[in-house]
Amino acid sequence: MTTITGDMLIGRTTVRGSTATLRAIQAATGEEIDPPFGGGGETEVQQACDLAAQAFDTYRETTPEARAAFLEAIATEIEAIGDTLIERAALESGLPTARLQGERGRTTGQLRLFAKLVRDGRWVNATLDTALPDRAPPRPDMRMRKIAVGPVAVFGASNFPLAFSVAGGDTASALAAGCPVVAKAHPGHLGTSELVGRAIQKAAIACDMPEGVFSLVVGAGIEIGQALVNHPAIKAVGFTGSRAGGLALCRTAAARPEPIPVYAEMSSINPMFLMPAALTARGGDIARGFIDSLTMGVGQFCTNPGLVIAVDSPALAQFKTAVTEAVTAKAAGTMLTPGIHQAYRHGVNELAAASGVSQIGMGVAANGPHDAQAAVFETTAATFLKSPQLQEEVFGPASLLVVCADDAEMRAVAEHVSGQLTATLQIDPADYAAAGALLRVLERKAGRVLVNGFPTGVEVSYAMVHGGPFPATSDSRTTSVGASAIERYLRPVCYQNLPQELLDASLKDGNPLGLWRLVDGELGRA
Amino acid sequence: MTTITGDMLIGRTTVRGSTATLRAIQAATGEEIDPPFGGGGETEVQQACDLAAQAFDTYRETTPEARAAFLEAIATEIEAIGDTLIERAALESGLPTARLQGERGRTTGQLRLFAKLVRDGRWVNATLDTALPDRAPPRPDMRMRKIAVGPVAVFGASNFPLAFSVAGGDTASALAAGCPVVAKAHPGHLGTSELVGRAIQKAAIACDMPEGVFSLVVGAGIEIGQALVNHPAIKAVGFTGSRAGGLALCRTAAARPEPIPVYAEMSSINPMFLMPAALTARGGDIARGFIDSLTMGVGQFCTNPGLVIAVDSPALAQFKTAVTEAVTAKAAGTMLTPGIHQAYRHGVNELAAASGVSQIGMGVAANGPHDAQAAVFETTAATFLKSPQLQEEVFGPASLLVVCADDAEMRAVAEHVSGQLTATLQIDPADYAAAGALLRVLERKAGRVLVNGFPTGVEVSYAMVHGGPFPATSDSRTTSVGASAIERYLRPVCYQNLPQELLDASLKDGNPLGLWRLVDGELGRA
Repeated sequence: MTTITGDMLIGRTTVRGSTATLRAIQAATGEEIDPPFGGGGETEVQQACDLAAQAFDTYRETTPEARAAFLEAIATEIEAIGDTLIERAALESGLPTARLQGERGRTTGQLRLFAKLVRDGRWVNATLDTALPDRAPPRPDMRMRKIAVGPVAVFGASNFPLAFSVAGGDTASALAAGCPVVAKAHPGHLGTSELVGRAIQKAAIACDMPEGVFSLVVGAGIEIGQALVNHPAIKAVGFTGSRAGGLALCRTAAARPEPIPVYAEMSSINPMFLMPAALTARGGDIARGFIDSLTMGVGQFCTNPGLVIAVDSPALAQFKTAVTEAVTAKAAGTMLTPGIHQAYRHGVNELAAASGVSQIGMGVAANGPHDAQAAVFETTAATFLKSPQLQEEVFGPASLLVVCADDAEMRAVAEHVSGQLTATLQIDPADYAAAGALLRVLERKAGRVLVNGFPTGVEVSYAMVHGGPFPATSDSRTTSVGASAIERYLRPVCYQNLPQELLDASLKDGNPLGLWRLVDGELGRA
Repeated sequence: MTTITGDMLIGRTTVRGSTATLRAIQAATGEEIDPPFGGGGETEVQQACDLAAQAFDTYRETTPEARAAFLEAIATEIEAIGDTLIERAALESGLPTARLQGERGRTTGQLRLFAKLVRDGRWVNATLDTALPDRAPPRPDMRMRKIAVGPVAVFGASNFPLAFSVAGGDTASALAAGCPVVAKAHPGHLGTSELVGRAIQKAAIACDMPEGVFSLVVGAGIEIGQALVNHPAIKAVGFTGSRAGGLALCRTAAARPEPIPVYAEMSSINPMFLMPAALTARGGDIARGFIDSLTMGVGQFCTNPGLVIAVDSPALAQFKTAVTEAVTAKAAGTMLTPGIHQAYRHGVNELAAASGVSQIGMGVAANGPHDAQAAVFETTAATFLKSPQLQEEVFGPASLLVVCADDAEMRAVAEHVSGQLTATLQIDPADYAAAGALLRVLERKAGRVLVNGFPTGVEVSYAMVHGGPFPATSDSRTTSVGASAIERYLRPVCYQNLPQELLDASLKDGNPLGLWRLVDGELGRA
């Protein structure tokens, strides 16, 4: 059984931080859990980053097979922790066991998907332009591939202690790309972080990966994270969390002597548009589905539906009644951390006190000290359009219904919302024409547009985009979930007139790896 | 014949700027050229950007064929300007007619390459994940495509008044991606900018593109550029120019309420490593090739070889003699603008005065007032490693030879250089082992690695990477030349459970456009 010691994992060693003492906390009670964690500082960040830099050239040139096997070994080691991992994550996050078991499956599935991707090799983007020696001027032989950007700093999310944390999507995609990872343990799940970090460390040793391919640092306050992002060896940052946290890292990264990209997935209120035919035909079902989506996991999803937009009508009145009924029946639930619970209460109070906003439903009152009570509010489009603060994410099971006078006002609301991870349309065939016009707006606003579903539930697959325009993320050109997430940690390099002896196998004559390659503009794998 | 009026081109109209008067300048003499240009300000920027925003949804959803035809029409209209364009560009830039004719061919060729790309459709990145209704939980139908990011601001380069300016690579790739463009005329070639801008305007009207797909603004100082980057409709910036200029735009873009990406191609000294066997076998040829590359176009290329690194040896002494001989014979040439000439003289004087740096060759003395005299300097690796200022680009025909004591010092220099557009290796087979080790370092440093050539000459093709780590560019994940340049102006959107009626043709069942698509992880175009 893996024991939690409260140490940092630097390369192949464990290091006791002496800068501060951090305590893991039981989400449900706020009580401290033993053992205490030793927080590190710049010294340990330096050690981890130096090792990562030293490992980089070796690691990025490991064979696809070796890298894939490493990712699979991490998945196996995570599974080998067994119930200890689930129990610890439940204690620290307050999330139910079944949910965490599912999340573990998502985490290991994600690692195995990236293993498959690494073997498949399309991410190399192998591109060859044949020399034209007789052209005037002669065209040289040019071959392009994508290579890893360098060591990556990973900041996990509070709300997915497994799938978006130490061995989550950022780590999996960075390791797949050939980037060493230095992860920072999230203070909300320190023990879970150590358990998972030890699984990666074991897999790295078993697979004979260079020391420094992975480290896990622990620290109090923002200093250790800032030191990590400021270290010259770090070439990109993956982050999931609050807007304030993400923007702070963006500022640090931009102010470096060598600025680096930050992929911060920050905040989203995920607007859902109820179109008239759908609302008339199945308003009650939509209301119940909406409240289920809103309260799932105590509303602690980035894709939680925090905004609903509809044109006023008798059908909307029925929808509201159904919403009130559905939310009233919803039990309160423990939030991830006392801090998140406090922020949720503050956000709900602000909404309740906002001018022009009224409450249309509340869940069952909270029982435990860190339980969140669901809440649904209502306002008019006119109020919403002049109140930027109504677009601020309230992380948890709270949502706002925006009632529009007509279609034009609904489009104005769509144009007014800031960048989102998702946007949802509830439509029936009679709504298609109006939905088509709205779709043009929503494509500009969101990374994913859904029809007749609810935004919670983010598939790990090829076509997934968990991204979107600012402030949903800091970089709308990418996704943090799904196969394309690997592209964040790659950059293209062109090789001109290299002899075969010096070319990477992916670019050699005869395509020895059997990759898909673009040769003189034609795709093939002959 | 197209007449230059000194007006701005806002959508389909011409607008006279009244904020300032700008004068085009003859590069060779510094004399003013009639007519004067009316400089605009925030009002005109607002007009251009509002039109671009209005055009965006229509333009990005034009058919691939319509967009390709528009790009081809621009090429045809540029050719139709005839000698007027070449004469004006020669007057304003001081570049020779033959070079400008070649550059025009590059510009129109580039537009036609992007037309081909738009038709080909691989840029759409169409990706489909089939629904799995029987899975628990069911997997929805998900389809991803890339769409245009939004209106793009383009800042052209002084040194390529055609190929990297108003209708250059940034504009061509942005228009290809489906982004309207607002270009700012470079003060170094105002008349050339207007001529090319009018060609685009004509093509847009003839092809019935939405008004606002293209505008050209003119302004004095940095205010108009800042206003452009600050306009909320602008979603990305393409820039080629100085590091100071690029970084200023990056800061502006990052400080916006909605930060946007800036693709700035800024500065590079393009190190060339001379390996022992190659140096011994053909040091004289390399020296002459180097000096030809250094002085071509009066050294005014981003890929100019400004740094040469070699281990001390008798062969290096012979190389230096050959360099001195070759550079001594090189005539001085007119620089692009008086300001560039002044900066070049300043840079050369700084190098000449730097401690531990000596001159090993000078070209023929300058004749005209804005002529640059070529200059080659020498220093030791020890001096270079402790003198960061020796890495600053001197834009023009100046280069620095860094003499290393041994291989280890050469690798230390390679590790020490900052990000570059290119790195070059001069090698013979006996050098391959050492070159292989150096290649691992150079891949991390440069966007393009060349063997046995010279870095000037940037092919517009599929495998080209004209990019590289900071400070060569502000975004090492991209290229500003070649087919992949289109990716800078695209972002992915996922569509979940959309009915066929609302899906774009690129994602519809049956693949009606015959695109390459990734379906459940398998690439094909069935």
